[in-house]
Amino acid sequence: MGNPIQRRWFPVSGFPGLLHASALQKVGEGAVDPASGFIRQPLFWGRPTCSYIFSINTREHLRLHHLNLRRFREETAKNFQVFRNVEHGWSSHQMQRFVSHSSLLFCKHDDLYLIDEFLAFLLFLGYIAAVSWEAGKPLVIQEVEVAPPQAMEVRMKILFTSLCHTDVYFWEAKGQEPVFPRIFGHEAAGIVESVGEGVTDLAPGDHVLPVFTGECKECIHCLSAESNMCTLLRIDTDRGVMLADGQSRFSINGQPIYHFLGTSTFSEYTVVHSGCVAKINPLAPLDKVCILSCGFCTGFGATVNVAKPPKGSTVAVFGLGAVGLSAAEGARYSGASRVIGVDINPNRFEEAKKFGVTEFVNPKDYDKPVQEVIAEITNGGVDRSIECTGNVNAMISAFECVHDGWGVAVLVGVPHKDAVFKTHPVNFLSERTLKGTFYGNFKPRTDLPGVVEKYLNKEIELEKFITHEVSFSDINKAFDYMLQGDSLRCIIRMDD
Amino acid sequence: MGNPIQRRWFPVSGFPGLLHASALQKVGEGAVDPASGFIRQPLFWGRPTCSYIFSINTREHLRLHHLNLRRFREETAKNFQVFRNVEHGWSSHQMQRFVSHSSLLFCKHDDLYLIDEFLAFLLFLGYIAAVSWEAGKPLVIQEVEVAPPQAMEVRMKILFTSLCHTDVYFWEAKGQEPVFPRIFGHEAAGIVESVGEGVTDLAPGDHVLPVFTGECKECIHCLSAESNMCTLLRIDTDRGVMLADGQSRFSINGQPIYHFLGTSTFSEYTVVHSGCVAKINPLAPLDKVCILSCGFCTGFGATVNVAKPPKGSTVAVFGLGAVGLSAAEGARYSGASRVIGVDINPNRFEEAKKFGVTEFVNPKDYDKPVQEVIAEITNGGVDRSIECTGNVNAMISAFECVHDGWGVAVLVGVPHKDAVFKTHPVNFLSERTLKGTFYGNFKPRTDLPGVVEKYLNKEIELEKFITHEVSFSDINKAFDYMLQGDSLRCIIRMDD
Repeated sequence: MGNPIQRRWFPVSGFPGLLHASALQKVGEGAVDPASGFIRQPLFWGRPTCSYIFSINTREHLRLHHLNLRRFREETAKNFQVFRNVEHGWSSHQMQRFVSHSSLLFCKHDDLYLIDEFLAFLLFLGYIAAVSWEAGKPLVIQEVEVAPPQAMEVRMKILFTSLCHTDVYFWEAKGQEPVFPRIFGHEAAGIVESVGEGVTDLAPGDHVLPVFTGECKECIHCLSAESNMCTLLRIDTDRGVMLADGQSRFSINGQPIYHFLGTSTFSEYTVVHSGCVAKINPLAPLDKVCILSCGFCTGFGATVNVAKPPKGSTVAVFGLGAVGLSAAEGARYSGASRVIGVDINPNRFEEAKKFGVTEFVNPKDYDKPVQEVIAEITNGGVDRSIECTGNVNAMISAFECVHDGWGVAVLVGVPHKDAVFKTHPVNFLSERTLKGTFYGNFKPRTDLPGVVEKYLNKEIELEKFITHEVSFSDINKAFDYMLQGDSLRCIIRMDD
Repeated sequence: MGNPIQRRWFPVSGFPGLLHASALQKVGEGAVDPASGFIRQPLFWGRPTCSYIFSINTREHLRLHHLNLRRFREETAKNFQVFRNVEHGWSSHQMQRFVSHSSLLFCKHDDLYLIDEFLAFLLFLGYIAAVSWEAGKPLVIQEVEVAPPQAMEVRMKILFTSLCHTDVYFWEAKGQEPVFPRIFGHEAAGIVESVGEGVTDLAPGDHVLPVFTGECKECIHCLSAESNMCTLLRIDTDRGVMLADGQSRFSINGQPIYHFLGTSTFSEYTVVHSGCVAKINPLAPLDKVCILSCGFCTGFGATVNVAKPPKGSTVAVFGLGAVGLSAAEGARYSGASRVIGVDINPNRFEEAKKFGVTEFVNPKDYDKPVQEVIAEITNGGVDRSIECTGNVNAMISAFECVHDGWGVAVLVGVPHKDAVFKTHPVNFLSERTLKGTFYGNFKPRTDLPGVVEKYLNKEIELEKFITHEVSFSDINKAFDYMLQGDSLRCIIRMDD
């Protein structure tokens, strides 16, 4: 779909808004294109939970109704028509004109057929997204135009997304330059709808996780076995546009809506650089593995890839949010015998036991620095610590609480831009190590499929991270849950 | 000699002040003990450079003359007598009385024989050491009594010692509580003279390196593969006494003279915990391998054991003193392709080339932080950096100049006690690692023999570190050389 005018007929898998492969349930006959004889696959995704109705009225803009199944059935029953206005070889600009003259397409009950390639263009337009117009203000669910993927880009349908602290942090815009209007979201799972020019390792229908950082596989970082900080596709929290042309792929009536972390998953469709897309086993449940695309891997990888606690060791985890508990899950997976959870919110403690946390320290319960408390209860310090709060004092404590001689502290949390890490250098000289990690040192494309397999093999558990679920239209509730400290992960169902 | 009254006859190797094995050249006949028939080995160490004359006068304290060979020959020619006052089973206290009644012992030309065990006691007393009475004041070469080794201790004859910055730092006593009078020195090589109770893996005559930190082989640190910071024998710069009894083994007229780092190698004889003694290949030239017991291993190990630069990588070394150049030698040994030396003393640069340093950066030549300069000339930063100055700003630069994604900085230099390491935590989060090392992470007893073998196999070079040599009586010159920045290592020959 990157160059639609070069492709006369679109297979279903290249058809935006319509799904493919294992997710696609055949519910009707194929439709034969009268010119080529190419048999179209059925286009309606037959899952019993949801779908869309696309109504295209002459001289009107495309409108998309996001309905539940009951309403869908009612709508389709009365709106069955077939779109017949066929031309070929138009440019995108021509298509815009075409849209304004088009007739009504449509489907009958559970059957929906692609009539011709231009329908694809029509369906590019008018998907809903949750747009953030102002720092700290509720997101607005509204129609957004999602442009086709450019070279090396992928457009994907988001099926599930979840809210991460980083979204909230940038939405609050307290610690950085605000970039608005913006579509947040970076933890998600979905299915490739179309690919831009030059994309060879992804195809429409692939089950994928979008990731806020990429892997070009060509730069010095990608060629290094140690780094996952791709030079080309490294996280850039300030950038709100795509790399290829410095433009946003989102717009509302011509006004650009900025991207966030190159993912912007709070949208039915999003465009992501193909290097930021991990293709995964299609058997994996996307409503679970979506949390791998940020929070879980960040914490889990910090432990298993960076801290690497030996079996039987003692691990401290600072911050018992989703990332911290993922770090704890990493400690459990690694065979740590003691996992000390540190949090100022005592409500976290009971839940944390599910994640292998064996004991708790609330810094507020002591008059002395928590690193001293931890050193006392561990005979000199923990073997490994993982800091998942972003608070610089917690970082210092996390470093200073590791045992001399071999202790390794790993920083995960994103600090305030003016934060300063301070410690006496002798703390290093006595053979402590301080490392930071970014996305748990996972290389997104190379490593994520393996993490998905670990989940499918039941080596790691994801269900326990998912404390809430909301429909897309209730996305602001997910923010409330997180701000109230109630949720670990709230899954946002895009199709509901 | 730990419990002399339990041993009736002393083999030569157990005889203080007299040497053994490969260092001992037989220059006379053995003497037969009239009671046991035990044949004594010759006691005079026949090296053509030096020896001692021990003259014991009735009712006078033992006096030791430290003479050159010419004077020795003159003295021995006129002083030949044989000590005959023999008794057995005396306590140390009794021996003191005995000394005060004893006759004159002596030797003829190059021959000196042990007459009986009590002579051993006599020879315990009155070795010379370089005593530091006051911070920053020249050391005083004077007679010092060196008590026998207690349980788990070793008394050794120091043959070569060298001056390290750490000696100077504590001698200047600018950054810590002064402990005086004290015998400094911790980089040395020698031969075991006697061992205390319980010492089973060392024997008189063993060629050894005393080390300022130990390896008990039983504590959690020694049992850890990662740490060399033995709980029992870890460096303690404040302690001036032995662990066993909290007493010093050095005294002058009953006044204790404090130990330094448990080694105090600026003394002909010293008492060291057996866990701080590495037994090495007796074929190794002690005047070269003596630098392994601190400086070389500290820098070399920081690179090869901690920073571990991959072959072909770029390494920055901050501080081109002996430790820094040892770190550079480690980079050369590891196959680094670029070694950037950083020093504010431009005189270091020419010499540093011998150690594999390929380019130089003088921070004083730039208006911007040296980490920025290094990042510019290395396309983003070095792969590894090793900080060998102890200056906290150099530590910060050394950390911030490593490449994101994989860079590892290693702190080696000892900082001021009030120093604070500061950096923005994002420097960690972008996957930089900061580690400190102590003694290059070498476990003294386990690892030093292997480093000696590397030298014997010509894998590493030590000669180029030795820029000066002085006799023991000129030890203050070694301080001058270092303070003037002229020397890397100045070897102090104890027997000259």
